[in-house]
Amino acid sequence: MKEALTGTQLQAVLNQALAYTDKGKVAAYIPELAKEDPGQLGVSVCFPDGTMLSAGNVDVRFTLQSISKIFSLIIALCQNGQKHVFERVGKEPTGDPFNSIIKLETIKSHKPLNPMINAGAIAVAGMIQGENIDDRLNRVLDMLRKMTGNPAICVNEAVYCSEKSTADRNRALAWFLKDSGILTTDVEETLDLYFRYCSIEVSVKDIAHMGMVLAADGIDVQTGERFFPEEVARICKTFMVTCGMYNASGEFAIDVGIPAKSGVAGGIMACVPHRMGIGVFGPSLDEKGNSVAGIKLLALLSKEWKLGIF
Amino acid sequence: MKEALTGTQLQAVLNQALAYTDKGKVAAYIPELAKEDPGQLGVSVCFPDGTMLSAGNVDVRFTLQSISKIFSLIIALCQNGQKHVFERVGKEPTGDPFNSIIKLETIKSHKPLNPMINAGAIAVAGMIQGENIDDRLNRVLDMLRKMTGNPAICVNEAVYCSEKSTADRNRALAWFLKDSGILTTDVEETLDLYFRYCSIEVSVKDIAHMGMVLAADGIDVQTGERFFPEEVARICKTFMVTCGMYNASGEFAIDVGIPAKSGVAGGIMACVPHRMGIGVFGPSLDEKGNSVAGIKLLALLSKEWKLGIF
Amino acid sequence: MKEALTGTQLQAVLNQALAYTDKGKVAAYIPELAKEDPGQLGVSVCFPDGTMLSAGNVDVRFTLQSISKIFSLIIALCQNGQKHVFERVGKEPTGDPFNSIIKLETIKSHKPLNPMINAGAIAVAGMIQGENIDDRLNRVLDMLRKMTGNPAICVNEAVYCSEKSTADRNRALAWFLKDSGILTTDVEETLDLYFRYCSIEVSVKDIAHMGMVLAADGIDVQTGERFFPEEVARICKTFMVTCGMYNASGEFAIDVGIPAKSGVAGGIMACVPHRMGIGVFGPSLDEKGNSVAGIKLLALLSKEWKLGIF
Amino acid sequence: MKEALTGTQLQAVLNQALAYTDKGKVAAYIPELAKEDPGQLGVSVCFPDGTMLSAGNVDVRFTLQSISKIFSLIIALCQNGQKHVFERVGKEPTGDPFNSIIKLETIKSHKPLNPMINAGAIAVAGMIQGENIDDRLNRVLDMLRKMTGNPAICVNEAVYCSEKSTADRNRALAWFLKDSGILTTDVEETLDLYFRYCSIEVSVKDIAHMGMVLAADGIDVQTGERFFPEEVARICKTFMVTCGMYNASGEFAIDVGIPAKSGVAGGIMACVPHRMGIGVFGPSLDEKGNSVAGIKLLALLSKEWKLGIF
Repeated sequence: MKEALTGTQLQAVLNQALAYTDKGKVAAYIPELAKEDPGQLGVSVCFPDGTMLSAGNVDVRFTLQSISKIFSLIIALCQNGQKHVFERVGKEPTGDPFNSIIKLETIKSHKPLNPMINAGAIAVAGMIQGENIDDRLNRVLDMLRKMTGNPAICVNEAVYCSEKSTADRNRALAWFLKDSGILTTDVEETLDLYFRYCSIEVSVKDIAHMGMVLAADGIDVQTGERFFPEEVARICKTFMVTCGMYNASGEFAIDVGIPAKSGVAGGIMACVPHRMGIGVFGPSLDEKGNSVAGIKLLALLSKEWKLGIF
Repeated sequence: MKEALTGTQLQAVLNQALAYTDKGKVAAYIPELAKEDPGQLGVSVCFPDGTMLSAGNVDVRFTLQSISKIFSLIIALCQNGQKHVFERVGKEPTGDPFNSIIKLETIKSHKPLNPMINAGAIAVAGMIQGENIDDRLNRVLDMLRKMTGNPAICVNEAVYCSEKSTADRNRALAWFLKDSGILTTDVEETLDLYFRYCSIEVSVKDIAHMGMVLAADGIDVQTGERFFPEEVARICKTFMVTCGMYNASGEFAIDVGIPAKSGVAGGIMACVPHRMGIGVFGPSLDEKGNSVAGIKLLALLSKEWKLGIF
Repeated sequence: MKEALTGTQLQAVLNQALAYTDKGKVAAYIPELAKEDPGQLGVSVCFPDGTMLSAGNVDVRFTLQSISKIFSLIIALCQNGQKHVFERVGKEPTGDPFNSIIKLETIKSHKPLNPMINAGAIAVAGMIQGENIDDRLNRVLDMLRKMTGNPAICVNEAVYCSEKSTADRNRALAWFLKDSGILTTDVEETLDLYFRYCSIEVSVKDIAHMGMVLAADGIDVQTGERFFPEEVARICKTFMVTCGMYNASGEFAIDVGIPAKSGVAGGIMACVPHRMGIGVFGPSLDEKGNSVAGIKLLALLSKEWKLGIF
Repeated sequence: MKEALTGTQLQAVLNQALAYTDKGKVAAYIPELAKEDPGQLGVSVCFPDGTMLSAGNVDVRFTLQSISKIFSLIIALCQNGQKHVFERVGKEPTGDPFNSIIKLETIKSHKPLNPMINAGAIAVAGMIQGENIDDRLNRVLDMLRKMTGNPAICVNEAVYCSEKSTADRNRALAWFLKDSGILTTDVEETLDLYFRYCSIEVSVKDIAHMGMVLAADGIDVQTGERFFPEEVARICKTFMVTCGMYNASGEFAIDVGIPAKSGVAGGIMACVPHRMGIGVFGPSLDEKGNSVAGIKLLALLSKEWKLGIF
């Protein structure tokens, strides 16, 4: 596969997708994110042999936001097992916006429908075990540093503070979960952890690496190091297909067909099983919170190089 | 009118209604309330000349709970005016349970539909002005003490603490309001104030007095002292009809027809315009949170003495 | 009271309200209604002694639309009794638009919340007994003719046909009711009856008469003839307060305070207990389906002549 | 692959799954379906070379029910193209039961979220072109006969009539779609077509064949005959993953991971890309409408023979 995609070709695809950066808007509700230049677009592709192709704004650092939901889920599953986790959060896509609170009230169990919506990810943050909040943060951070070979990955404090100070809807979700007994840990501390996960700063190269580990079912193909069980990788890839792109996941599955997870900072981490991990950054978002040009770029790649899993 | 209702008759009505105390359950979600004996029933009727008839458990003290929503609304209207208040909370009944959060998301303005549901009353608590939280509490407390001639009325600290420690759904509502810009004051402080209003302790005699003031459009008929403008009394009586009995208000309006406000501690404050104020206490509640025997008692009184306003 | 309101004064109030006719729009979804001149406004007031004051477009004929929901409910209650009727339709205001279908699915009983929303009124139409559909229509029509002393009242065939051909949302409601077992009669026939009730044509004088009968608890004060029991009148007046003005009923109760029922053709029938019936016609509607200038006119009358019941 | 699965092994898996037939109930709301023996279980697996393995109740004929939604979508896409179809029906999973009407009202476009829920499939039925209703039925029927090599496939008239006479919720959905302009054809005729599609009678062998065609991207591997474009096969397989098992699709994707579509008669058609088509029949359903033992059987097969796509 790798041979079939050259740096020149990747640059050409990026150039085509660039035209879409003015079709959306940067996330406005987190002041720090609102400062981003909407015209940016960057992509990195990581192959099983560890080589990487990149194009566009590859060195810009941005925060994971919802992409972190995959990694907190991985740690939660490793620490607690499927039974514990899925008794507190469901496996179903919702059709509702990521910050919707309605189904928490209407669903009898009051269980968030899946761990990719905010309510579900907050519930997952509550399951991460550790001696203190720093330790609970580091469980995710350490794994990401190892997966990417980038020990410099850390929380962007400005975004974290910005997030924390504007996250009242998330507080509403968390207190609802607390009321329902889904969340049993301290609410403000759990939210704090959740905001830190969201504020982990990366580049497209980093998330291409992470995507490649998922594509390889949890191992670093180069070293053979296993970061999490195959079963956990499988669960994550499935959630990426059914719920990874907010309430546009179904459309993305049909139009692009690659397991992917987006974040409102403009990142998308995608994985083509056994073939590649892809990191995209384009902060101009569509109505549902996904990178407009990023989706376009992945659609072009998928079509041309037949990357879809369906 | 007064002549037509004797203490013996009131006792007879109470005896009839007593049979209904075992049709419901005491509120379980606030531990302090869960301790109440469900078999209790008490009633006081206050007439324009200040005389009073009582029967049953008249000396038991219980907390206002949602009945306080009327009095915080009165203070909010007096301090801020209708325009300010109704820009932040609506005037419509909802058809939903008192602690529902759904319409906060589905209604475009995110405005609570009315001040008698929890979301609306929390928004109202946020509008009460004062130098500090004690001062803001006292605005309501002082008025109630004067209205009832009972300077001993105060907050039940045990209930207040119990409420505060089990109020996570209310926290979810408050944070949602904060996120929507409806609530602009500190959330935890506003909730604290709201819980204290709910925990004000009274007897049926006290709320019969309060009901009589509402029945007299805001004045103490004996002394002529005005507690709040006629216009404010009118607004409260209207809300008592359209939203006073949670999502059983429509049924109560048809079956009983007296402006009334209930609380989950089992109290109901009713007012028959220009004729009487009625206080009822019966902690055994129906599914919607209203005193089962209390409703029965008011229905019997209304039918026999033609107290309905329709 | 009558002495206090003169024709000149009524004309002055109407003149003031006229300015509001351009604040709304005529109902667009029924083609026949869309043809109305939005600048029209007419009012009639009927007193217990049978005298009447009128101003503005008093001779224009318009269709009852939702005002008919009061009269089909009256017949249904007279024919079936409260128990039968209220087992199939509730007594609660909803907070939702008149044609909403959501609560039919979310409420466990699948029972329409009240008989003033479309779903509830269709359920009520299904309860009207008669030998055939004409007979079932005439039960309502005959009563209206007698109440108004106007034997010419009949269905506007053009509106009826227009309604029937554009009523697909009502069909959805009716089939949902059929599915839930609430509606047990033939769906298309029941809808046909419902559309005919809606298409009964009247003038403001006619509905002022009807309002006066309700104000007099079911009798023609002049002749003493009783059209329906006092109990039924009481139920209707209560519904007019809690649900009569669609999901603006709560606001109208506070701002105007007169039991009233509106229709999307622009009519409002109001009744001031024991004092007057009021008919208004102003086809320019607000967002919720109520006559903009009609509400203004009633608000002015209520304020100046203290007509509110609260 | 084929070599790895023997008839003995398939029988063993079926025997294990049989224990689950008493964990559910046969569909009660369609009288003809309610007659089925819940203890039945059958499975057929069809391989690319046309060979087939079967076990259990392989000769029982049952109706496609929702499995037909895949094939009407195929015809609709072939006749109208993606643009036309997806302007009228979405691509998103819903999280709601298959017959829910709520989102039709709450989603701004009033578009059914996907073609696998009833509302969406009724909209799709409205898009099938043909000279008359028989012709429109035959477009699907003819394709199924060719795909399976079974010219005897036809509509079960008893089920069709049973369905038609108990389908009032579907009528509500269809009229809502008509009202929103999504459905532009005659409602009763479109429903009639929809019910006939649902009532097409098959055996597990037939649906294993159909599943194999989907697994082969639209062709009969033996003859090379193409039934529909690869692109259409891809779309269908994606919908099978995101929405194929009603509001348990997310769970099935994680636990089993095979593109599949279930029906309330107890059938499940599954396809393992390029490897096999699987037909299952087990009329005992779980709460969400999926065959309990059928899901178990597929889960066992998937785990043991690594059939999951994730």
